Amino acid sequence: MGPRDGLQNIPDTVPPDVKLGLIDRLQATGLSYIEVAAFVSPKAVPQMADAQAVCAGLKRRPGVSYAALAPNVQGLERALACGIDELGLFTAASETFSQHNTRCTIDESLQRAAAIAAPARAAGVRLRGYVSCVLGCPYEGATDPAKVAELAAALFELGCYEVSLGDTIGVGTPGKARALLSRVRQALPTAPLALHFHDTYGQALANILACLDLGIASVDSSVAGLGGCPYAPGASGNVASEDVVYMLHGLGIETGVDLDALCAAGAYISEALGRPSGSKAGRALAARARRG
Amino acid sequence: MGPRDGLQNIPDTVPPDVKLGLIDRLQATGLSYIEVAAFVSPKAVPQMADAQAVCAGLKRRPGVSYAALAPNVQGLERALACGIDELGLFTAASETFSQHNTRCTIDESLQRAAAIAAPARAAGVRLRGYVSCVLGCPYEGATDPAKVAELAAALFELGCYEVSLGDTIGVGTPGKARALLSRVRQALPTAPLALHFHDTYGQALANILACLDLGIASVDSSVAGLGGCPYAPGASGNVASEDVVYMLHGLGIETGVDLDALCAAGAYISEALGRPSGSKAGRALAARARRG
Repeated sequence: MGPRDGLQNIPDTVPPDVKLGLIDRLQATGLSYIEVAAFVSPKAVPQMADAQAVCAGLKRRPGVSYAALAPNVQGLERALACGIDELGLFTAASETFSQHNTRCTIDESLQRAAAIAAPARAAGVRLRGYVSCVLGCPYEGATDPAKVAELAAALFELGCYEVSLGDTIGVGTPGKARALLSRVRQALPTAPLALHFHDTYGQALANILACLDLGIASVDSSVAGLGGCPYAPGASGNVASEDVVYMLHGLGIETGVDLDALCAAGAYISEALGRPSGSKAGRALAARARRG
Repeated sequence: MGPRDGLQNIPDTVPPDVKLGLIDRLQATGLSYIEVAAFVSPKAVPQMADAQAVCAGLKRRPGVSYAALAPNVQGLERALACGIDELGLFTAASETFSQHNTRCTIDESLQRAAAIAAPARAAGVRLRGYVSCVLGCPYEGATDPAKVAELAAALFELGCYEVSLGDTIGVGTPGKARALLSRVRQALPTAPLALHFHDTYGQALANILACLDLGIASVDSSVAGLGGCPYAPGASGNVASEDVVYMLHGLGIETGVDLDALCAAGAYISEALGRPSGSKAGRALAARARRG
């Protein structure tokens, strides 16, 4: 998620060649899915204004899927012109958050997603769904797991091959994550479900661990824990990819990802942003490498 | 662990009244065990040179146990003179680490512990044991769980009411933590076992979660994740108490700890040290409180 969710809200300006440098390093790690851009309003999200330039500069590798978000038909048209492989469709499990974040009701967000889904599929673009606020909303508090299940099923019905359940504000804890997933699995098979945890309260890795034995095999993350500012109180980056991979490898789970190369990608973007990496495993492995 | 393990290796000088301010705030949270000092060589560990001043300044609360480490009989005598409630006895599961850290073999460290144990118990002081490097050693690599089990049993035999298994360099992952604990439980009952994870690779909370359903009910932690420097690459603080308590409360586990008060203690010491808190839950809850 790094080049998209990781960079879209930070105050710094990140030039397209730095984003491309990051994407190039990420695809060298063995990752098969990289979210590279969002075709959203440049006024609303200035960091994603260069989506076309980023897509035009990709040095595509076979076996890697280059994904982007699009909130509406205009975004879809830009994305199709850029030859994007996958498109993200999104909704939120909180009415108030949906209004604040995308200025539409949940129903309207599903209608927008439906308007994109058919032409995208006709153009051969794969669809991935996102439900945000699955474990809590900054405005409404706790989220009803049944609502998440309903929305995940709706996105699946639109043709998403996978639906990612996002704890957008990182308030979830392992028992609640498991309870949510158990409820969603009543509406959907497990295989097309993914998890997307922000690490706002430090719980992300524990939440992922708690869901692994329910059959989850797809986890969103950002290299270097991008997505929050380590200097901003209450920063809320995605869980750091390096920490996730370190855990999975420790558990004996094959990821196909080269952890050293992933740490190098994290070091690259952290240096470009002039801030320490948000990945503890990334920092520790870099220190170990320096000691030799 | 904050006032002791958390502060003993940081470069800053922390005056005794700041330590006492921290201890005062920690004991106001409902915590019943606080490690306040180490009676070690002031030359080797300058941060602990004020152990006597700290102990003399304690505003003791009923129900709180004030603990310290002592490596030898001289340390024990200083600790007894200070009226400490509990004493930590320690050894390491790695011969090389033992030599580097305490300049003695593992056997010698057990002999030193034995020399302290009898007079400490005779003086009515409770004993808590520590085995370090239980999931890996910076010099020797992986640790043999059988060695950890043997040492934990040895400390238990010396009269420790609890033995804490320390992943000193934070390299452990959940499966390895569970495997270790399963092995140690062959030698000891679970009740007197505690876990002590450093968060060097971001794995600590996941490791704790993985061990909860094996019956672990005692976990070491440091408020604000003290123990490493957030600016130092490869920093390796204890797992942050706030993050642990946030997870446990989310799991519906009673801790008796007031999380808001704990965050206040973390904010106090972080401000005194002039650095951001190492606890993500602490930072997020502080930001939420500021937003009102």
